[in-house]
Amino acid sequence: MICVLSGGTGGAKFVDGLRQVMPAEQITLIVNTGDDLLWWGLYVSPDIDSITYVLSGMLSRERGWGVKGDTFLCLQAMGQLGEPTWFHTGDRDLAMHLLRSRLLAEGKTLSDATAVISEKLGVKARVLPMSDSRVETRIDTPIGELSFEEYFVQRWYQDPVNSVRFAGASDAEPAPGVIDAIEAADAVIIAPSNPITSIGPILAVPGIRETLLRCRGKVAAISPIVGSAPVAGPAGILMAAQGLPCSIVGVAHAYEDFIDILVCDHRDTRAAELLRANGLTVHCTQTIMRTAEDKAALARDVLGYVSRSPHDERPARGSAFRRLDQQP
Amino acid sequence: MICVLSGGTGGAKFVDGLRQVMPAEQITLIVNTGDDLLWWGLYVSPDIDSITYVLSGMLSRERGWGVKGDTFLCLQAMGQLGEPTWFHTGDRDLAMHLLRSRLLAEGKTLSDATAVISEKLGVKARVLPMSDSRVETRIDTPIGELSFEEYFVQRWYQDPVNSVRFAGASDAEPAPGVIDAIEAADAVIIAPSNPITSIGPILAVPGIRETLLRCRGKVAAISPIVGSAPVAGPAGILMAAQGLPCSIVGVAHAYEDFIDILVCDHRDTRAAELLRANGLTVHCTQTIMRTAEDKAALARDVLGYVSRSPHDERPARGSAFRRLDQQP
Repeated sequence: MICVLSGGTGGAKFVDGLRQVMPAEQITLIVNTGDDLLWWGLYVSPDIDSITYVLSGMLSRERGWGVKGDTFLCLQAMGQLGEPTWFHTGDRDLAMHLLRSRLLAEGKTLSDATAVISEKLGVKARVLPMSDSRVETRIDTPIGELSFEEYFVQRWYQDPVNSVRFAGASDAEPAPGVIDAIEAADAVIIAPSNPITSIGPILAVPGIRETLLRCRGKVAAISPIVGSAPVAGPAGILMAAQGLPCSIVGVAHAYEDFIDILVCDHRDTRAAELLRANGLTVHCTQTIMRTAEDKAALARDVLGYVSRSPHDERPARGSAFRRLDQQP
Repeated sequence: MICVLSGGTGGAKFVDGLRQVMPAEQITLIVNTGDDLLWWGLYVSPDIDSITYVLSGMLSRERGWGVKGDTFLCLQAMGQLGEPTWFHTGDRDLAMHLLRSRLLAEGKTLSDATAVISEKLGVKARVLPMSDSRVETRIDTPIGELSFEEYFVQRWYQDPVNSVRFAGASDAEPAPGVIDAIEAADAVIIAPSNPITSIGPILAVPGIRETLLRCRGKVAAISPIVGSAPVAGPAGILMAAQGLPCSIVGVAHAYEDFIDILVCDHRDTRAAELLRANGLTVHCTQTIMRTAEDKAALARDVLGYVSRSPHDERPARGSAFRRLDQQP
């Protein structure tokens, strides 16, 4: 059993590879819900949507979100009605939001709704929201506090970021099955998602980080940063706002207390050496996923890393590595 | 000022004519909401939709409902998710339901929501739901009681009908402006809609029928029946279930206490004679509306009838005509 913590973009790409190289039934996904939003009165969970679409083969690979071949006529009509249109929900995509919203309105939890939708779409992997409670990623900027989607989609992540917080996290509980899935996993993989706003909200749910510290399986993180820039999106800006360098060192820092293995790109061989010198197991491979083959190769590599290195080879989780804090 | 009581199909056609021959600003529509339904968790008001679409020039004239040129990809996707698909909501059409549902969820009344949507779509006529309370047309059949849309759309009005009732009507109030609009109108026109399930629910809202009895303007009804068959839909079956013949005599009966004028088709000249003999003013013209010209001509004719005959020419409203009950 493999447990993957994921956001929606890089995470979905990695999951697209993983499902090619192992039985989907053996994958549990714990998915960020910090970006969830009420849109046109519907409950939209962008990362759960992307993960569900990729697992059902429906994801638009060109866009990296939404349903392939989708049209946007409802969006157009909403614009004519004077409603906001910055968040692009396709006509086919709307079905997901309509069904989930109805299930939630009927009193179902987000976990229940996610399971119902997975089943309807023939998704064999287990998709779990990080929590059934509302945890909202809030981005503090000079123009005020924004939701993640306002910051990211509406405003094209152009605003300087003062800080990031996860409203509601301290009162949230992990969704049913989340803790068990981490504990039972032969390996836990942190997908190449934004460490701050995709993985950060998951780690902010009380109990999840603690379980990663004590789980029996190896914990491997794939860096979404290559060199000094994220593969996509605002990870660099957000890491800087949280005091982390935009590099694999920053990624290692973000996860320093619980990862056994960091997977980074070939191009980061030198930075990898520095981390290795500090006691972290680092594997370099091709992490840029352009083709289906790239995705499968990365997934195969990562599965190799987590199975190859026996658990007792590494120092006590996090101990040696914490010294990174003292590095210049 | 002209006030029109209307359902969605024949009514929308007539309104399409009316808006060609008089300023829309001088028209108030009082629209049936007995067919309203929760569909995919959204509040859908089929007759208000049709009337709003026809007034904004968006109605699909081919189908007679929904938005012209609309696509049905969300519907398809809902089917893939195992959701019901018998009620055909187009992708553009969904915008209407999404906006209305959000406004209602925010605490707005159906009147408010209708006014907001009218304004957004540039509708100059005043569109009023018959009531802001929920009144549900229920069709009793051998397989049980059905909502109107279940009976009409889902089951293609194939079930025998025992009876029709308007659940919630006795506790309902006319929506704001409804009574005033009838009282202030220079003429009230009952559109060529189903007398039982399109006009019936409006008349069942306490106060509306009483206002029609005492209003100062002439009240004219256009028959949706030609010869012994409705122009479209289940009006005949439903009239029979309510003990009315499927003919202009049945239509006259349905409205006998408050109409001054019945407008029927040329083909009903003989039946018209019978009604005239009983004291009702009846005008025969072409009521079948196939083209934009047909619609405009009928609207022009009806406006002529209601303005031509001075109010004091006719017997006390309903008095002479009630004798029809005693006819074989």
